[in-house]
Amino acid sequence: MGMATGKGGTDRLSSLQALLEEAGIDVLAITPGTTCFYLTGVWLLGSRLTLFLVPRRGQPAWVVPRLEASRVAEGGAGSPPVFAYADGEDPAGAVAAALESVAASLGGTPRVAAMEERVARLFEWRAVASALPAAEWRAADPLLAKLRARKDAAEIAAMRKAVDLVETALAHASRCVSPGWREDQIATEVEKALRQLGTHSPFGVHVASGPRSAVPHAETADRVLEPGDLVWIDVGASVDGYASDITRTFLLPPEGRETEEYATRREIYAVCYRAQAAARQAARPGVRAGDVDAAARRVIEAAGYGEFFTHRTGHGLGLDVHEAPDIAPGSDTVLEPGMVFTIEPGIYVPGIGGVRIEDDILITEGGSRSLTRFQRWLAPGPAPDDGEGGPVGGDGGA
Amino acid sequence: MGMATGKGGTDRLSSLQALLEEAGIDVLAITPGTTCFYLTGVWLLGSRLTLFLVPRRGQPAWVVPRLEASRVAEGGAGSPPVFAYADGEDPAGAVAAALESVAASLGGTPRVAAMEERVARLFEWRAVASALPAAEWRAADPLLAKLRARKDAAEIAAMRKAVDLVETALAHASRCVSPGWREDQIATEVEKALRQLGTHSPFGVHVASGPRSAVPHAETADRVLEPGDLVWIDVGASVDGYASDITRTFLLPPEGRETEEYATRREIYAVCYRAQAAARQAARPGVRAGDVDAAARRVIEAAGYGEFFTHRTGHGLGLDVHEAPDIAPGSDTVLEPGMVFTIEPGIYVPGIGGVRIEDDILITEGGSRSLTRFQRWLAPGPAPDDGEGGPVGGDGGA
Repeated sequence: MGMATGKGGTDRLSSLQALLEEAGIDVLAITPGTTCFYLTGVWLLGSRLTLFLVPRRGQPAWVVPRLEASRVAEGGAGSPPVFAYADGEDPAGAVAAALESVAASLGGTPRVAAMEERVARLFEWRAVASALPAAEWRAADPLLAKLRARKDAAEIAAMRKAVDLVETALAHASRCVSPGWREDQIATEVEKALRQLGTHSPFGVHVASGPRSAVPHAETADRVLEPGDLVWIDVGASVDGYASDITRTFLLPPEGRETEEYATRREIYAVCYRAQAAARQAARPGVRAGDVDAAARRVIEAAGYGEFFTHRTGHGLGLDVHEAPDIAPGSDTVLEPGMVFTIEPGIYVPGIGGVRIEDDILITEGGSRSLTRFQRWLAPGPAPDDGEGGPVGGDGGA
Repeated sequence: MGMATGKGGTDRLSSLQALLEEAGIDVLAITPGTTCFYLTGVWLLGSRLTLFLVPRRGQPAWVVPRLEASRVAEGGAGSPPVFAYADGEDPAGAVAAALESVAASLGGTPRVAAMEERVARLFEWRAVASALPAAEWRAADPLLAKLRARKDAAEIAAMRKAVDLVETALAHASRCVSPGWREDQIATEVEKALRQLGTHSPFGVHVASGPRSAVPHAETADRVLEPGDLVWIDVGASVDGYASDITRTFLLPPEGRETEEYATRREIYAVCYRAQAAARQAARPGVRAGDVDAAARRVIEAAGYGEFFTHRTGHGLGLDVHEAPDIAPGSDTVLEPGMVFTIEPGIYVPGIGGVRIEDDILITEGGSRSLTRFQRWLAPGPAPDDGEGGPVGGDGGA
């Protein structure tokens, strides 16, 4: 409640207003979602028009359906005025009144307005745009990515706990990863463990085995695990709204002699393992995100599997499961301390199977640290050399 | 897989194309979400640009990130061509190629284009709009509401099961609704029961008690229940993607003599109970949705509590927890057999408490039927007369 930082609060609002001033944006219209929660501490539904209008200086204003008026008034965003409308009533009046309040802070009608292009929906944009017909529109996404990408201590503590919880659940369910178990039974074991820990996976529990593991976003099915299978589990946990995200791949021992397909599975596992380590070692402050992607891609391409690595190396993590920074080819975001993102190269060979190894990485002052500590090599035989003599970047390593 | 109806399939696509033809819309750009699932049988994430382009005649086309290409190709939408782009690559090329494929079906570049204004985000719209700079834009929402509002037998069966599951979980947890229990403990009991039934609540489990119950969208907290409290539980279940949504309010017996506040709680409970029954009795084919809202509102206003009924009477239910039809003041949607929606009037008196009673209603050929059968009167003493002598609309009633 009130002014608490860590869940909304005036510090984050001030930082945002400084960025708006710098960018020459008069008003930012925030719609329900994680940025709204980040700034105000309130989770809102979006089926009725809901806006948090932030001018570059002065008091923000809410536009909310009447039934949410008391909830936003008690949120952590200070006491901005609340303009409510009733069900069945056109919200245009409330939008106009809220914009007038914002204009009073600015000393005039906003001329440059912004919304989150990846979050705001067309009806929300039209509601504001029709009230500001002369406004020039900007995308607020880059500015908000900048605001949210560097996590503070409370955010990092929540994410660390989310990582610990998912690792506990995964360890519990690992004993089921053997021939005869079905994918959905394994997923249920993971879900049960998460539930007992008081959390859940914000994006579901994905288990894919055998040929199905070659589909990067496969959904859990009822396939029964067989000897020699590749099996991956992709799951997260959630603490105070913050996500963790982990993938581990298991290579089950073969029945009888190794086939040629099995040898390929072992090979792509080892290549992916080395690629993942290379990307972790590349991650440190001052490095471009694209260079972290390139570090993983180089290992996989050199081994001749480049065409089977069909996605980026990773994505930022926080209140959203996918947020900034993007660890993708050509991404020129410069890594800074406090950024948290996944490193998850994958190799998917149709008919043979797929491997993905995913950790959550924190950029520190001196290098980087993997919040994920779960064993990465879950295949028969010793792990290949991952080139990690010691701590990454001198900062404690994995 | 293939052409199955019930999860995507060509029947729904044909119905959609007939509506597009009628509306003069050349191409509809569908973004990830429930309409996409309804038409294609595939659940997709939306963090990377993803489009399902449906021309008013001929073959649709997909624009997808490369890692989703195999998944959409195996979906239930027939075999539309898939235009994929790699992470780190501008998707504009894939969008242009997909629009060319659609233009070939139409015999020319689309001139009238549509998106779902309540679903499509600004970046998705800009991606299509910049490839079709001369297009006139329409909102696809009314047309898709029409397509999706009348549920078929498979959809109704899924929703009926989702109602049964949530009622079982609620019955299990009801025994905990007594003084000394905390709201979050009750919510955990409901969640555990849902989990054991193989489902979850698509919108969380909301328990609010005492003065907190006067906030219609209150989140569960750690308040301990006291004698004389109003306590409501709002929860759903999910079956094959379809939601149920139920609210029940409990009035706990007072300790010692009845206070004036307690008498008010009993009164608003009885008024809400009668209002809910009146709305159910008003629901039948040919009636306007606004008249169902008015039936509930009239009872509450006549009792002098109109200002404390701060939301609409209900909302459509299906793949989305909030969809068409809107049971709100002035809504002129005419009810048709197969429509499913909630009826959930509420009265929220600050400092005293709130009551909401919510059922899921199916419009039948002859009237309506409540899919929800859970006891509605959960207060001390006999239920007031709800004016229901027998079945609603002669069709089996509650």
